[in-house]
Amino acid sequence: MITLTTDFGEGSHYVAAVKGVILSINPAAVLVDLTHAIRPHDIRHGAIVLADVAPYFPPETIHLAVVDPGVGTDRPLVYARMGAQHFLAPDNGLLSLLARRWPPSRIIRLDKPKYWLQPTSATFQGRDILAPVAARLSLGFEPDRLGSPQKRLVDFHWPEVRLSPDKIVGSVLMVDSFGNLITNITAKMFSKRPTDHRAHVICGTRETWGIHRTYGEMPPGNFIALVGSSGRLELAVVEGNAAARFNIQPGTPVTVTWEQPEPSQQG
Amino acid sequence: MITLTTDFGEGSHYVAAVKGVILSINPAAVLVDLTHAIRPHDIRHGAIVLADVAPYFPPETIHLAVVDPGVGTDRPLVYARMGAQHFLAPDNGLLSLLARRWPPSRIIRLDKPKYWLQPTSATFQGRDILAPVAARLSLGFEPDRLGSPQKRLVDFHWPEVRLSPDKIVGSVLMVDSFGNLITNITAKMFSKRPTDHRAHVICGTRETWGIHRTYGEMPPGNFIALVGSSGRLELAVVEGNAAARFNIQPGTPVTVTWEQPEPSQQG
Amino acid sequence: MITLTTDFGEGSHYVAAVKGVILSINPAAVLVDLTHAIRPHDIRHGAIVLADVAPYFPPETIHLAVVDPGVGTDRPLVYARMGAQHFLAPDNGLLSLLARRWPPSRIIRLDKPKYWLQPTSATFQGRDILAPVAARLSLGFEPDRLGSPQKRLVDFHWPEVRLSPDKIVGSVLMVDSFGNLITNITAKMFSKRPTDHRAHVICGTRETWGIHRTYGEMPPGNFIALVGSSGRLELAVVEGNAAARFNIQPGTPVTVTWEQPEPSQQG
Repeated sequence: MITLTTDFGEGSHYVAAVKGVILSINPAAVLVDLTHAIRPHDIRHGAIVLADVAPYFPPETIHLAVVDPGVGTDRPLVYARMGAQHFLAPDNGLLSLLARRWPPSRIIRLDKPKYWLQPTSATFQGRDILAPVAARLSLGFEPDRLGSPQKRLVDFHWPEVRLSPDKIVGSVLMVDSFGNLITNITAKMFSKRPTDHRAHVICGTRETWGIHRTYGEMPPGNFIALVGSSGRLELAVVEGNAAARFNIQPGTPVTVTWEQPEPSQQG
Repeated sequence: MITLTTDFGEGSHYVAAVKGVILSINPAAVLVDLTHAIRPHDIRHGAIVLADVAPYFPPETIHLAVVDPGVGTDRPLVYARMGAQHFLAPDNGLLSLLARRWPPSRIIRLDKPKYWLQPTSATFQGRDILAPVAARLSLGFEPDRLGSPQKRLVDFHWPEVRLSPDKIVGSVLMVDSFGNLITNITAKMFSKRPTDHRAHVICGTRETWGIHRTYGEMPPGNFIALVGSSGRLELAVVEGNAAARFNIQPGTPVTVTWEQPEPSQQG
Repeated sequence: MITLTTDFGEGSHYVAAVKGVILSINPAAVLVDLTHAIRPHDIRHGAIVLADVAPYFPPETIHLAVVDPGVGTDRPLVYARMGAQHFLAPDNGLLSLLARRWPPSRIIRLDKPKYWLQPTSATFQGRDILAPVAARLSLGFEPDRLGSPQKRLVDFHWPEVRLSPDKIVGSVLMVDSFGNLITNITAKMFSKRPTDHRAHVICGTRETWGIHRTYGEMPPGNFIALVGSSGRLELAVVEGNAAARFNIQPGTPVTVTWEQPEPSQQG
């Protein structure tokens, strides 16, 4: 099984060429499109999608990923073993978020042209290098034969979340296909906090109270916070598009504070 | 074979997560994307697409469908046996149009969490409930074991067509990817009517004469009526986009009348 | 293996109907989407994509292609054997560019309704004629049985490149999903020319100097010429969208000239 993640655009015929090359070498390969709608040249977007989705795939899945503004320059292409799966990508940070969750147990720099398509174009290494290499891996080829060992992957400065006793400060990590704002604040960071209905969430110039369990708890049009399906705090307009309506971009700060419960009048 | 129909958007990585879960349970499952371009939260759109396309699939196909503005609320998820096929969806009307054609022979409310992904998120039940259930069905699992029997599916008020001796009044049901206007008036409703070239079709403020056999019978740019590939009366601009050009939406009334043949001068 | 190329739009449920018909006849068929994002009714666009991508697929692949403004008129549908592969398409020029590279060794006009879906709609022959025929071919059916031999395919007037000793004049053939401008000038036409860094390339009202090896050689935002992955001269904005930024369409003339090297001062 080989998955494909690119910024080529849905319906790009470049994706089809990659598939043709793989199927020419291994006609029995099962191909799954992870997505081709990564924003062009946006390595961070690709990295987040890979980190969120790859864990749902079975062991030994081969993931081929291309978001590669530096194609044809001297940045290497790499094989990485992470978790129980295989990854092929340019070493430009695209694997860096998943690598924090699953530190690579092996990294190989792809430098053996004999396993590539010949001639190898300088501008389409996804088709000419990664596709034939992925096909060979799917046939049982040993990763070690593909090139030379490498110590570590290129890392990215991922925005950190600041945690203090009465406040969490993070940021919008990405916008999903519904326009929901996915943040880097996870549900685990809430533990030992006052109950969710006392939370006050500020995103850019917008604010909302309470953290909901699902979209349908509030009427359409409301701006709400909830813990989304990836375990992250998410901001959404019920049955609407929050990113478009409030013009919020990735990187926008998100602050969560908690109101103190009123002192009891009873005592 | 498992098909997927969602409003997640083409290229959504949420679709990929659903596929990953299915393939983790049944690596031999054959996945076919029916469409992920249902308009977000538009249950009617999803219902029409399912009713039009599912009949072309082979017996025993498993269809997983998610258009679910109420995700995580108390609306149930269901299994339905319709025709010779299997359907998994929220019980919110999404299966209601197909159910008019193929009345369900069995409906099961999915209420056995032991067959779901754990933990089960409140906001992504397509991935956490429907995907593992679809995978188990594809492995031969008995539908009865998935939950409790249910008598009927949630129905929708689908617009009716009014038929009178000299007039048919229906409406635009959906806009297809070419901008053609697909109506709820079917070819069968025309039987025993005067010949098609005497038909007068009014859609909103636009009108056209005659019902054509195919687009190519008139030059580009003409607004024409024809019986489309789903057996429905369809309004189209030849080599153009009727919905965009005339700003016509689903729900717009469509009226067909027939001119009387001129009395013969011969007698 | 059967590939699908259409102008139905990514996510069109018409594509799903085509797949359903194929899988109903041959449940073991492996389906690969080549693209469904051909510009509606743009036969040239479809022809270029087929010519560029089909060669990457393995021998005996069956390609089903539909870009068919004349659907249901008397233009025939054909089977063509080209290279070592099989093609099914309307005979309207859609196969004409690939046919220049791989002259057809056999052409069959599809005129045997007994192999089609019944009833056969006049407006969706991709589903009703090409899909069942493709499925039968994938089961080993002999092409000769599908219809009557035909001598040649409909040809198109493809824009020619004019070559003179100090100048090449071609045009933009298509815009890819990144907005790069792909021309009909190929790398082979450059042989015996002065070195690339002396080239002067004019596209419409824009110009650039030098022919680069890859995008990353210049900083983001630069308008550059390079030889792209299909072996064609390509004009691009580094990490940007050249077509949108300069509003350049297919058909725009592209001229390449070479500056003479300065006479040596040494002699």
